[in-house]
Amino acid sequence: MNIAFIGFGKVSYVLSKIIQSPDINFTTSCENRSKETADLISKSNVQVHDSFGDALGCADVIISAVTPAKALEVANNYSKYCNGIYLDLNNISPYTTEKINNLVDNFVDGAIIGKIDSSSPTLYLSGKDAEKLLFLDEFLNVEIISDKIGDASRLKLLRSTYTKSLSVLLIETYELAKKLDLDDEFFEVLSLTEGDDFKEKSLSRINNTMMSSKRKAEELEEILDYFNDDDLKMIKTALDKLKQF
Amino acid sequence: MNIAFIGFGKVSYVLSKIIQSPDINFTTSCENRSKETADLISKSNVQVHDSFGDALGCADVIISAVTPAKALEVANNYSKYCNGIYLDLNNISPYTTEKINNLVDNFVDGAIIGKIDSSSPTLYLSGKDAEKLLFLDEFLNVEIISDKIGDASRLKLLRSTYTKSLSVLLIETYELAKKLDLDDEFFEVLSLTEGDDFKEKSLSRINNTMMSSKRKAEELEEILDYFNDDDLKMIKTALDKLKQF
Repeated sequence: MNIAFIGFGKVSYVLSKIIQSPDINFTTSCENRSKETADLISKSNVQVHDSFGDALGCADVIISAVTPAKALEVANNYSKYCNGIYLDLNNISPYTTEKINNLVDNFVDGAIIGKIDSSSPTLYLSGKDAEKLLFLDEFLNVEIISDKIGDASRLKLLRSTYTKSLSVLLIETYELAKKLDLDDEFFEVLSLTEGDDFKEKSLSRINNTMMSSKRKAEELEEILDYFNDDDLKMIKTALDKLKQF
Repeated sequence: MNIAFIGFGKVSYVLSKIIQSPDINFTTSCENRSKETADLISKSNVQVHDSFGDALGCADVIISAVTPAKALEVANNYSKYCNGIYLDLNNISPYTTEKINNLVDNFVDGAIIGKIDSSSPTLYLSGKDAEKLLFLDEFLNVEIISDKIGDASRLKLLRSTYTKSLSVLLIETYELAKKLDLDDEFFEVLSLTEGDDFKEKSLSRINNTMMSSKRKAEELEEILDYFNDDDLKMIKTALDKLKQF
């Protein structure tokens, strides 16, 4: 079996490392690619073709793992070479997922939840061809949600909506606790019910959110536009606060 | 050592069961008490006096575990009998805590976090006499926060603020997930990062909040009045939603 990567960043690199089988060959191309990407490819066990036409044409599975902004463009450029399953793993909106579905055949909507380089990343899939990717279950957790294109993307949005809003709530209550000089105790008392790692996890969320609040606000704004639901008052408030950080 | 209870509901009952030592005697009174309370007292190993004057006068530690609305009244009525430590365990605002502190000597501000009948309840204490209650550490987790009266109450408010707002956020995202027919997957995907018990804990929070949204809204409104902080936008939104449930 041949698996071809469009885009070769961390996701593709890690996948090429954890999917190890004598029956599976990886291909990609360095066409129009940065030196950084070419270096990463050279560190992995992936066969490099001169053009994407060559790399993708012989693939049973094509994995698109680029940036959200480029997901549609690469689908548009390379769908003509696609003869197998086209799996999109980009962090894109369900709208974009639908657009890609209209461009490529045998499309599978995919979302990796959790860090790809964690001990057990989970790959959520939706679409009628998702079952054909169940062989990946040997290498990482694979969950098929439904045969509906967009469900994997929507699930990722739901998760992202919850964790982003939760982070803003954490920032708000942590700031309050600091004002009362009870911040250590705040974490301690909540760890009794929220788990031993509550402090570590919360501080990591708070720091990540503060460091990239602009990007997170943009993402949350897009998500709210997509859901278009007046009841989402907590999430809207989280967005308003994110914009002010 | 004599420990006297004002109020004999679940908290006092459980404390009288878990604090087991040949050196400790429990006392209380059935003066003006309901048959239900008298029955609960009769099931425990607590010496009953005819009057609270007799029950409290000989106590080294008095524990007030009544209802929030009655905490100040009992302090007012019974402080004249108090010769030892006066520990308030009621779910009261830091304002009420201050008022009780002005009425009784040797006051200790206490808050039990988590369910009293769980395997390991934790008793948070603040006040300059809190150290005198460290002997209780033999029977349940005891944490001294500071020598400042009000810190234990404020910590309980902080925790309650966070968990109440979190519950509203959970309700909002869960409703959204249900609309998308992805509610099971929503819990599953979050349990990967939030812990295996995420679904169970979240559903319990959602149900508790929906079943007593009016009371929770009142509590959260009092908390917000106490903190009086315009930055608490997430918590204010949680309150607005709670009022509408």
